[in-house]
Amino acid sequence: MTDCEGAMSPVELYEKLTAQGDQVRALKTAKAQKADIDAAVQLLLKLKVDYKQMTGQDYKAGCPPSENTVAPDNGPAADGADDEDTVDPWNVSTTNAKGVDYDKLIVRFGSSKVDKELVDRIEKVAGQQPHRFLRRGMFFSHRDMHQVLDAYEKNKSFYLYTGRGPSSESMHVGHLIPFIFTKWLQDVFDIPLVIQLTDDEKYLWKDLTLEDCNRFAVENAKDIIACGFDVNKTFIFSDLDYMGASPEFYRNVVKIQKHVTFNQVKGIFGFTDSDCIGKISFPAIQAAPSFSNSFPHIFGSRKDIQCLIPCAIDQDPYFRMTRDVAPRIGYPKPALLHSTFFPALQGAQTKMSASDANSSIFLTDTPKQIKNKINKHAFSGGKDTVEEHRKYGGKPRRRRLLHVLDLLPGGR
Amino acid sequence: MTDCEGAMSPVELYEKLTAQGDQVRALKTAKAQKADIDAAVQLLLKLKVDYKQMTGQDYKAGCPPSENTVAPDNGPAADGADDEDTVDPWNVSTTNAKGVDYDKLIVRFGSSKVDKELVDRIEKVAGQQPHRFLRRGMFFSHRDMHQVLDAYEKNKSFYLYTGRGPSSESMHVGHLIPFIFTKWLQDVFDIPLVIQLTDDEKYLWKDLTLEDCNRFAVENAKDIIACGFDVNKTFIFSDLDYMGASPEFYRNVVKIQKHVTFNQVKGIFGFTDSDCIGKISFPAIQAAPSFSNSFPHIFGSRKDIQCLIPCAIDQDPYFRMTRDVAPRIGYPKPALLHSTFFPALQGAQTKMSASDANSSIFLTDTPKQIKNKINKHAFSGGKDTVEEHRKYGGKPRRRRLLHVLDLLPGGR
Repeated sequence: MTDCEGAMSPVELYEKLTAQGDQVRALKTAKAQKADIDAAVQLLLKLKVDYKQMTGQDYKAGCPPSENTVAPDNGPAADGADDEDTVDPWNVSTTNAKGVDYDKLIVRFGSSKVDKELVDRIEKVAGQQPHRFLRRGMFFSHRDMHQVLDAYEKNKSFYLYTGRGPSSESMHVGHLIPFIFTKWLQDVFDIPLVIQLTDDEKYLWKDLTLEDCNRFAVENAKDIIACGFDVNKTFIFSDLDYMGASPEFYRNVVKIQKHVTFNQVKGIFGFTDSDCIGKISFPAIQAAPSFSNSFPHIFGSRKDIQCLIPCAIDQDPYFRMTRDVAPRIGYPKPALLHSTFFPALQGAQTKMSASDANSSIFLTDTPKQIKNKINKHAFSGGKDTVEEHRKYGGKPRRRRLLHVLDLLPGGR
Repeated sequence: MTDCEGAMSPVELYEKLTAQGDQVRALKTAKAQKADIDAAVQLLLKLKVDYKQMTGQDYKAGCPPSENTVAPDNGPAADGADDEDTVDPWNVSTTNAKGVDYDKLIVRFGSSKVDKELVDRIEKVAGQQPHRFLRRGMFFSHRDMHQVLDAYEKNKSFYLYTGRGPSSESMHVGHLIPFIFTKWLQDVFDIPLVIQLTDDEKYLWKDLTLEDCNRFAVENAKDIIACGFDVNKTFIFSDLDYMGASPEFYRNVVKIQKHVTFNQVKGIFGFTDSDCIGKISFPAIQAAPSFSNSFPHIFGSRKDIQCLIPCAIDQDPYFRMTRDVAPRIGYPKPALLHSTFFPALQGAQTKMSASDANSSIFLTDTPKQIKNKINKHAFSGGKDTVEEHRKYGGKPRRRRLLHVLDLLPGGR
């Protein structure tokens, strides 16, 4: 989903808001399904936040924005207040050279901040120093972590679920973030872990064959295995294989698909009428591993074991949808721990991307390739922007490189 | 899909047609995908046919229907020319007491008539008298049957695919039509047969649990088995079970889902934005058995074996979609043989429905129940309509009953 409001004028956004208000009223009048009304209301609220940000005024029906309202320019802003952050499962970008404004994202997504209190509590429950990704603020946002810890303290266990969309032969260092952290969670809490490789998703979204996507899944699994998960408590699966090997998994997919309308996925993911029906129904497949009875060989028929999903924040839309559906089909809502993005070598305006070799350090790169990439793309000595470079000049040691160092254990 | 035009005035239909024309132009201007444009054009053509039927005039942009145009009343018409036939996978009804106008349906669906030439040819290739359902015109429409027979004469075989949506414990006699006929085709051509029980579809469309739908599938399978298919050449499966037991089947589902847009299923099935994503993607699941490599335990990895689908004409929308997708994913188009509907006991305006016990004779009904139902609902001695009854009076032997007799072998 691209942030459409980015290209709109205040008047256009005002008109869109008015239309959305009409839409909500129409749905309520027609006594539409609650989920549809909720989705429309959520989009309305989001538009109101965007409107306030763009115009500095509260939206008021019947009062178009005054001519004097100036839309902010799209250049980098010092405080990040006016930046255009695009964050969804397929696009992460910002016009702010300092990177995405994560505090704003917490407000926009309605999640909770991982604060000192939570980190301290994890330390207490886990009985050891929290992982450096927690201490360094890389896992910065969560949903229901306190509930997971409450239950764990009462001897009610949980399981972990994370995943990867296998779009290339090799993973890059950015992909390791959730896996390194998930391994720590598994070690500390001694619990089962399921890892979904969404080769079906990559086939639906990219110009790749089914065979390629499935091969990438197998290759990526090797990189994931190398993180050192507990072999007795870890299940790694490709959708193209497991969907056709587990009637229980498919049953949960169908249950979810019955309880999500096109209106909802349109609001959450920005799908359009021109999207293929595979994309439209895929969110149910990423949702299904959040429910324990999708894996009878691990959990039997138990459907009450809560799931904790460590993932990058761009995956949150899938799980907002999942959490909305869960109580309606009799399952517990999954909890989440969200990480920041791993910036591209070129800077924090985008994340590392497997489809742009120069933006990323791949796990298969040779030491020489890594050295060249860092020297050429990340360690140029230049400033974040041409303007800043002109003003302040070059600097031999670049802050950007610290992101790569964040991967390593250390004193921080 | 309900035939929305049924409730429209000529002016409303004119406006809808104009809007659809704009839509087609907009898609072409936007250089939309060919499939989307084709779907929009198809809907436009359908609306033009409806318009001509309703007003007796050809649609002309900019020329609304004249005030003098009178929409036909919805009462029974002698020649059937003005009737409102609704025929789609979920609804079959007509305002004509004589039943659906099947010749009109052939034109509307773009299929071919099963004429004497084809029946004679089947007799020649099969080497025996054609089945009574062919001789009596119950299988009245087809797609590509000559191609199937051409190939068969050159020793290139095919396989059969039919199915059932298990919405009730027991099937009724109307459900037997495709199975009785398919058994004859299997006997005559000595070929494999796959039978899909769409328990997932029934869960998505009806207020039933997954467990109920799956149980109905098992119960219905018993009725189907009783038709006497070749046990060595027949595979009966429930979607809820087989989808989770065959990676190859799921791979074909995903391939189809990648090549069909929401615009297309909206045009074909009348889905709306308020429909759940399960309904929207389901057509791919009914399409997948049309391709031989969905069944590796029968056909290995061969994907070139043509499929022949005997089914009631209301299922054709699924296979129009399938035939559109097939060449784009490298598979042969399935051929079809369409049957008429089996009328409800109350008359030909609807078909027998498992959800209306009084309309149907169930395979589990006792001889006494059957006798009572026929005497009470089908054999009243009354005319098709109150008007006709007033005019012509009662008649002790009712033509309607002959539909039930059509099931039996006999001289006709």
